[in-house]
Amino acid sequence: MNLTGRHLIDPNDFTIEELQKVIDLGLDIYNNPSNYSDICRGKILGTLFYEPSTRTRLSFESAMLRMGGSVLGFSDSNTSSVSKGETIADTIRVLDGYADVLVMRHPREGAPKLASEFSSVPVINGGDGGHQHPTQTLTDLVTIQHYRGKISNLKVAFCGDLLFGRTVHSLLKTLSRFPHISFVLISPEQLKIPSHLRDEIISNTNVEIIETQSLEDHINEVDILYMTRIQKERFFNEEEYVKLKDSYVLCKDKLKNAKEDLLILHPLPRVNEINYDVDSDPRAKYFEQAKLGVYARMALMALVLGVI
Amino acid sequence: MNLTGRHLIDPNDFTIEELQKVIDLGLDIYNNPSNYSDICRGKILGTLFYEPSTRTRLSFESAMLRMGGSVLGFSDSNTSSVSKGETIADTIRVLDGYADVLVMRHPREGAPKLASEFSSVPVINGGDGGHQHPTQTLTDLVTIQHYRGKISNLKVAFCGDLLFGRTVHSLLKTLSRFPHISFVLISPEQLKIPSHLRDEIISNTNVEIIETQSLEDHINEVDILYMTRIQKERFFNEEEYVKLKDSYVLCKDKLKNAKEDLLILHPLPRVNEINYDVDSDPRAKYFEQAKLGVYARMALMALVLGVI
Amino acid sequence: MNLTGRHLIDPNDFTIEELQKVIDLGLDIYNNPSNYSDICRGKILGTLFYEPSTRTRLSFESAMLRMGGSVLGFSDSNTSSVSKGETIADTIRVLDGYADVLVMRHPREGAPKLASEFSSVPVINGGDGGHQHPTQTLTDLVTIQHYRGKISNLKVAFCGDLLFGRTVHSLLKTLSRFPHISFVLISPEQLKIPSHLRDEIISNTNVEIIETQSLEDHINEVDILYMTRIQKERFFNEEEYVKLKDSYVLCKDKLKNAKEDLLILHPLPRVNEINYDVDSDPRAKYFEQAKLGVYARMALMALVLGVI
Repeated sequence: MNLTGRHLIDPNDFTIEELQKVIDLGLDIYNNPSNYSDICRGKILGTLFYEPSTRTRLSFESAMLRMGGSVLGFSDSNTSSVSKGETIADTIRVLDGYADVLVMRHPREGAPKLASEFSSVPVINGGDGGHQHPTQTLTDLVTIQHYRGKISNLKVAFCGDLLFGRTVHSLLKTLSRFPHISFVLISPEQLKIPSHLRDEIISNTNVEIIETQSLEDHINEVDILYMTRIQKERFFNEEEYVKLKDSYVLCKDKLKNAKEDLLILHPLPRVNEINYDVDSDPRAKYFEQAKLGVYARMALMALVLGVI
Repeated sequence: MNLTGRHLIDPNDFTIEELQKVIDLGLDIYNNPSNYSDICRGKILGTLFYEPSTRTRLSFESAMLRMGGSVLGFSDSNTSSVSKGETIADTIRVLDGYADVLVMRHPREGAPKLASEFSSVPVINGGDGGHQHPTQTLTDLVTIQHYRGKISNLKVAFCGDLLFGRTVHSLLKTLSRFPHISFVLISPEQLKIPSHLRDEIISNTNVEIIETQSLEDHINEVDILYMTRIQKERFFNEEEYVKLKDSYVLCKDKLKNAKEDLLILHPLPRVNEINYDVDSDPRAKYFEQAKLGVYARMALMALVLGVI
Repeated sequence: MNLTGRHLIDPNDFTIEELQKVIDLGLDIYNNPSNYSDICRGKILGTLFYEPSTRTRLSFESAMLRMGGSVLGFSDSNTSSVSKGETIADTIRVLDGYADVLVMRHPREGAPKLASEFSSVPVINGGDGGHQHPTQTLTDLVTIQHYRGKISNLKVAFCGDLLFGRTVHSLLKTLSRFPHISFVLISPEQLKIPSHLRDEIISNTNVEIIETQSLEDHINEVDILYMTRIQKERFFNEEEYVKLKDSYVLCKDKLKNAKEDLLILHPLPRVNEINYDVDSDPRAKYFEQAKLGVYARMALMALVLGVI
């Protein structure tokens, strides 16, 4: 099970064992950072951000710098100067000479996949349109294992926009490949997960799925509550929006029946779907989650670079 | 007197002894750079520039790189992608996981102060609106001590727009806390320093202040001449502007009665308030001042990081 | 022959012996990169890109990082914040305190030359308007020597827009200084090289020049085919454009009579002047050329920094 030279475009590119290897290494780096502070000396990360995503970019950059490597790239609308009239294939065949691993963010679905087909160095998908964002999923998995010890025997709730949320889809699919995971899917009727995704998840062994419109009905049973934003424009009408919007806002009050070791996660940024009064609750771990994302990315890069 | 973990938002956050410690270290680094070229190995500076300020940003970056550390951050209008709908508190609680010290530039007064309240790592104010710019003040102090040996027994003239100039206010307030400093304040009547600032300065022991409209009347007595720009739009009418503008432009001729060891400073960029014929005068030290700013920032970061 | 502290604004700034020194070092670094991976430890490259040029910037950054140095700079439209009302002379006298070598890209011809006159550290021209781009020329020379062993006794064809193409002019002039180089210049009548350039080249010893409109007539004789883009807007009328455009597109078919060791080069990005079916031809070396550009820049920076 060697990840050297591998691309990561879709979480399904890695087997469960390979994902587990990344997760385990991420947590070992987290616990013993000084053992890893120099393993990427001389290595260069290229950050190819065809649309801005400051958090994702800086998380990758921090990850590479904390392993002693360095970073170059672009992060803004000047991509016009990268891509002027040029195909992604051509661009990548130049840029893969400048760096040892590339992370690409692109507004078009499939662009990182295409890049990986022409690159002589590993390509990591940093988000392509509404499609995949596999290192957010790795971040979520590292966080779950950090706080729960292992990724199995968990009841995981997702709350918010489950129809369009890329982060949710990716984590749902990936978690369903781990043993004994069941799901509680909380959303307005119009924002339920797509049926093809539901079918795919169920086909992974015998995952149990509960779908509900109520955040409170099942909150006492779940081990993880994964909150996401509902964008106003997703609602079909204003009346519907006004009626539902508060019911998917997490507040201290709604947590009163939740488990003591519940894990509250969120991919961030939040807008108003988690009240500030929740931040001081010891079960709120979304800021720790963002920090653990650096270690997930360290592990991933160290493995595809083959420095470990 | 330990500065480890401290924020610097306002020059008043540091006692005179603490400022002196930064200044002394800055000059020691300047004189013995190789002793310090590796002290920040493994440390990361995060540059959070919510408005562009290329000079300030690059000075900080150079400072960190010259100590063997590394840098990540943002510097442009893509801050929309950082702050979209998110509070500064939330942003900082993510970004403080990516770096070991943060410098923040923000158009809104008080933003760096707010950031410091939520950050787990030191926050340095890189300029907030028209409010504070403490590392420019540190730069000025390091420059004065470099050329005069110590910061005391000095007559310091400020010339230009003393009403709106953030740099002037900050340096005036800070210098007034050092021993035996007196001031000559040279400006048009409408651009005198605000009266509340005058009162605050005078309350610091018995600082002597002379206010005048003439650049030439006192130039023979002063040890330091700190020039600043007068923006045309600050004048109340065109006639006034035409009448006064040349009288605040420093030229070789106006320096003929000045002291031989006068120190001419300017926060840069200059527009036309110092003639190019002054550049070759050995008393003109504004470019050296900009260079000493790197050492001021090295010292500050080394101390708040606790690597020294 | 010491290049320490030297600027490179125009390829003519360096003698043939000095160019040869850069080329030889570039190829030695290419062949033995680990010997050079730390020679710029503690050195800082400043990238001053007053107009975006992502490829050139990243090639320089990769070059510095691969020698263990670090990078700061700007690369975007925020240059307004660098240059607001300030002269290049003033800007450079600040920025040369932040870095050990500067590369400047500027839309105005002559800006890097002016910068070099005020800088205390070496300035490299990264492209100024339609004027010079000397590190592209170095890249081309390194590539030619890599594949042909030495730069002499070569018949070199240039195809495309030879009237406006900065890259072509620079390489033509420089190659004409090497021994026994002859040229085949392939272009529409309206896009022939400027007569002053033709005269200058011919004055360099007795270089032979063939001018032709046909890509195919001489392809069997040439050792190197340097393709460039013809921009549609360069044509004098639509009819002319439609008539000629395909005749300057290289395809597999047009290569059937070419030498087996032909070297096909292109400064990139290409648009459609080389068909994709040529990419798999072993004579197509334009992507390798882009990669060799990193080594050309490593050699140049190492020599002007005097670290070697």
